[in-house]
Amino acid sequence: MTDFPDGMVWLVGAGPGDPELLTRKAERLIAAASVVFYDALVGQGVLDLIPRGVRTVSVGKRAGRHSKDQATIDELIVRAALAGERVVRLKGGDPSIFGRAAEEIDACRAAGVPVAICPGITAAIAAAASLSRSLTLRGLARKLVFATAHYRAGKPIDLDWQALADPQTTLAIYMGKAAAAEVSLGLLSQGLPPDTPVAVIENVSLANEVVISTRLDLLPLAAQSCPGTGPAVLLIGTAIANPVATNLREDAAWCRFTEQPS
Amino acid sequence: MTDFPDGMVWLVGAGPGDPELLTRKAERLIAAASVVFYDALVGQGVLDLIPRGVRTVSVGKRAGRHSKDQATIDELIVRAALAGERVVRLKGGDPSIFGRAAEEIDACRAAGVPVAICPGITAAIAAAASLSRSLTLRGLARKLVFATAHYRAGKPIDLDWQALADPQTTLAIYMGKAAAAEVSLGLLSQGLPPDTPVAVIENVSLANEVVISTRLDLLPLAAQSCPGTGPAVLLIGTAIANPVATNLREDAAWCRFTEQPS
Repeated sequence: MTDFPDGMVWLVGAGPGDPELLTRKAERLIAAASVVFYDALVGQGVLDLIPRGVRTVSVGKRAGRHSKDQATIDELIVRAALAGERVVRLKGGDPSIFGRAAEEIDACRAAGVPVAICPGITAAIAAAASLSRSLTLRGLARKLVFATAHYRAGKPIDLDWQALADPQTTLAIYMGKAAAAEVSLGLLSQGLPPDTPVAVIENVSLANEVVISTRLDLLPLAAQSCPGTGPAVLLIGTAIANPVATNLREDAAWCRFTEQPS
Repeated sequence: MTDFPDGMVWLVGAGPGDPELLTRKAERLIAAASVVFYDALVGQGVLDLIPRGVRTVSVGKRAGRHSKDQATIDELIVRAALAGERVVRLKGGDPSIFGRAAEEIDACRAAGVPVAICPGITAAIAAAASLSRSLTLRGLARKLVFATAHYRAGKPIDLDWQALADPQTTLAIYMGKAAAAEVSLGLLSQGLPPDTPVAVIENVSLANEVVISTRLDLLPLAAQSCPGTGPAVLLIGTAIANPVATNLREDAAWCRFTEQPS
């Protein structure tokens, strides 16, 4: 295949978990690989698409669990490529969004290994699809911000709440569930209205997806009630109201749980 | 098909243009539709995937050209669904990002028409893949902002430059080429360094894709030099440097044109 010679690395976005949300290109590259290094966040349904003849290696990193560190992963993929393998580095979501792609690209380049990215559906976009809401709204939500609240126990999250607390912005906070109380407090303290619509979406696009629709002041309670331990994204802003704008206040006043079969 | 009965509307993300960047789900829905209403920004390669038996209707909207207005499109898809068709509304990129999805969803719901979103690869994510750069960098680019600079001749762009001019943020400005001078001036005036790396990516993922790597103060010149008339996204911030951070200043000092066969 002309775009996947021996000795090359493709960083491939696996999307949020549902194997149907993989791109056609990602499916082709996975089938053409000789080895696939995959994250803990890659869905089992996606892994099931890897042909039997392709070697698979878990390099899962997950909050709070021991796993291979980034330097080790960099070394593994470079070494495999230098040995002549066709390497797919399969990452949950999109490689370029909170995916440590830069480190792996720079490691490949430093070793003279050709490397490229195949994009994937990132969690916030899949979450909006699950909610059937737009992330932007003409005149009301004209900016979209992706931030991560990856939580390290005991350390406050280093986000600029003042910059984030804009009523004309939709916020997507990755890895946000553990930090829900801090996110709520931070945004309320900077003046974002307590009834700002919020959705917590856990295990986006998978059979065990959970959607909680609530409001900013009730977010800590909603997040505590969220039953699972999977990755979750928070969507915050007027655009998340359902139905949008027209009767926003009425809708955002309650807490809705939806278990959605994928 | 259980998730696409007669009388239903799917808003389907067509991705940036390359038909390989369509999701597997989008491909399935297109093949199962009885009618596809598509935008001007949907790539020809994607349209070529629509089976011959499926009726196609162009509802293209494009800056500066006459086309069907949003209310007409809303009515068309609702009327088709009420007539029992399986309707795909095919939108460039992802429906939930600057895609007017909310209007179409609300119109469907008001008419009692079931509607859902199939997400797509949005231009900024595909552009990062084309550049082989990450949009986020640990410790350096911790936030990602999507904004649109859709340009109306004679009217200044209504963006909050102060909020956007954050050296720890990566900015993705959609429809940004015509507004390049205003974007550059706005961000410079709020203190973003003149040598901040910028990329202009036109016709992302297509055979006629053009990538210009430059710096913030040279952006107006670079955009003027960009030969095409297709849609373009601007990526702005440290993460866009190539290679990243390590020798940023050296790299950002020149203007690089790359014509990339898809």
